[in-house]
Amino acid sequence: MITLRPAAAWTAALILLVAPIVAMADDLPSWNDGAAKRNIIEFVTAVTTAGGPDHVAPADRVAVFDNDGTLWGEQPMYVQLAFALDRIKALAPDHPEWKETEPFRSVLAGDLAGVAASGEKGLVDLVGVTHAGMTSDEFTGIAGDWIDTARHPKTGKPYTSMVFQPMLELIAYLTANEFKVFIVSGGGIEFMRPWTERIYGIPAENVVGSSIKSRYNDKGGKPAIVRLPEVDFVDDGPGKPIGIYSHIGRRPIAAFGNSDGDFQMLEWTTSGPGRTFGLIVHHDDAEREYAYDRNSHFGKLDRALTEGPRRGWNIVSMKNDWNKVYPR
Amino acid sequence: MITLRPAAAWTAALILLVAPIVAMADDLPSWNDGAAKRNIIEFVTAVTTAGGPDHVAPADRVAVFDNDGTLWGEQPMYVQLAFALDRIKALAPDHPEWKETEPFRSVLAGDLAGVAASGEKGLVDLVGVTHAGMTSDEFTGIAGDWIDTARHPKTGKPYTSMVFQPMLELIAYLTANEFKVFIVSGGGIEFMRPWTERIYGIPAENVVGSSIKSRYNDKGGKPAIVRLPEVDFVDDGPGKPIGIYSHIGRRPIAAFGNSDGDFQMLEWTTSGPGRTFGLIVHHDDAEREYAYDRNSHFGKLDRALTEGPRRGWNIVSMKNDWNKVYPR
Repeated sequence: MITLRPAAAWTAALILLVAPIVAMADDLPSWNDGAAKRNIIEFVTAVTTAGGPDHVAPADRVAVFDNDGTLWGEQPMYVQLAFALDRIKALAPDHPEWKETEPFRSVLAGDLAGVAASGEKGLVDLVGVTHAGMTSDEFTGIAGDWIDTARHPKTGKPYTSMVFQPMLELIAYLTANEFKVFIVSGGGIEFMRPWTERIYGIPAENVVGSSIKSRYNDKGGKPAIVRLPEVDFVDDGPGKPIGIYSHIGRRPIAAFGNSDGDFQMLEWTTSGPGRTFGLIVHHDDAEREYAYDRNSHFGKLDRALTEGPRRGWNIVSMKNDWNKVYPR
Repeated sequence: MITLRPAAAWTAALILLVAPIVAMADDLPSWNDGAAKRNIIEFVTAVTTAGGPDHVAPADRVAVFDNDGTLWGEQPMYVQLAFALDRIKALAPDHPEWKETEPFRSVLAGDLAGVAASGEKGLVDLVGVTHAGMTSDEFTGIAGDWIDTARHPKTGKPYTSMVFQPMLELIAYLTANEFKVFIVSGGGIEFMRPWTERIYGIPAENVVGSSIKSRYNDKGGKPAIVRLPEVDFVDDGPGKPIGIYSHIGRRPIAAFGNSDGDFQMLEWTTSGPGRTFGLIVHHDDAEREYAYDRNSHFGKLDRALTEGPRRGWNIVSMKNDWNKVYPR
């Protein structure tokens, strides 16, 4: 029989307790030690432990991430809305009639309340002008060029540098553990695809989002895919499980979001059989990023904040759970 | 200076010429030596040769395969149609009214001409009854059970054993060369997904197909995705480039089909920049499989057979280019 002196026993116990913390420090260094980090690692360990009761085959290790507010910022407005407004300004010289027509008049006057007042009709008009009427290749070029040059109004940084470092670590950690990682965003699918692989390591085909209709045009020489000014699919709220069904074809086992638009995605994921994981990023860090939730115009988080905890979802405090927000 | 005797020089020349044939024999043993096999290997070698003029980064090595008639048989009727007819028969005892209602009456009477006479309306009714009205999980179970037990009317074999061995080798060869391989089929996306990974090694999320609408239902306890009797997307003909744009988000560099429904997919693929590859399987083997093309009800191949060669597409003769049709 081996007996340890009390001090040695305490040391051994501490090493056993601390060891997982040390191991996880390598994978998720921007996450403070706490319940969220511990739960992430415990879940990933459980589903990847061969022969364990919660083991999930790699093919079924599907993780889905919202984009706006979850992987990058969404204040003071959705990045894609900033893109649309910039496009209107760039196209305005060719459209003198916009000075008299809503929602374009408000956009050009910098009057966001006026844009909002134009309602869904106004939004569809904006999308039609800025996202449709060109070929797929042209739009990819336009969106890609914009994201390379546009700057956030508050920080002056490129939007793609304002992605959340703890979430990048999480994506890499899941990928290293043979998860298939997808973006499932209310944002436009083709707006994201030009840069998700470079910024997040998530390839274009693993991006699910809202879309407009398009048409194959084989007239007049070179065939092309032409984008049409008509909404095809809204990948938000109850649309997210549908987008997942259509694009991925399996129920995820882990879902990450930040707003009520992610509610059904987390609900669908965490009501599946076996071990599942749900996580909500709560923007409560006015100093390093923004603080908003129940009353925000963008990324409203109300129902999920109330119901999340009793559904077993992890509510992550940006302020307390993250020791770093941006990559640099 | 080294001089070879004439006989040795011939031997050396022969070895040089024969070497590629020997190398490719390992990857594509069911393909006879000939232009199609040579072109496949030459293309794959060109796009995977680092530093070569035709090199394509792995992320952009997207290959798309039609399913019906390209990866498995489609005679005497599409497998999914056989599934729908079997479902009608299975459900008929609960629907006595079907004995008096088309297209169900014709289905139950085994009168395919009568089914065809019911036109598009009849087809939509068949799809509505056999593919909608249940949850996503229920449909996956129904389709999966059927494919496990159904038998081909001529051979008595499971449909999943009547996949084309040369195409399985091609998928494996492309995958080994870091291609991302997708199915882009006119068939139903959720009909294929339960078994494509097991049979082809192509995971569910890499399957693009036709679809009906569905709705997220969070009423009454367990959330579910409910399948609706309404066509959402037809992934055939000009729909295939659109399905590719929506699901994959990149233009493929290689496309494989067998019918005019694949024309636009091959056109879109082979009109892209850089090296591309198009291939059409021509069913000209009445002895080992079926012989049909310009006048077939299923898998009609007319325009692509005429225009394919001058577009540089490889027309594969099942009879002459394949030394084996099925895995066993």
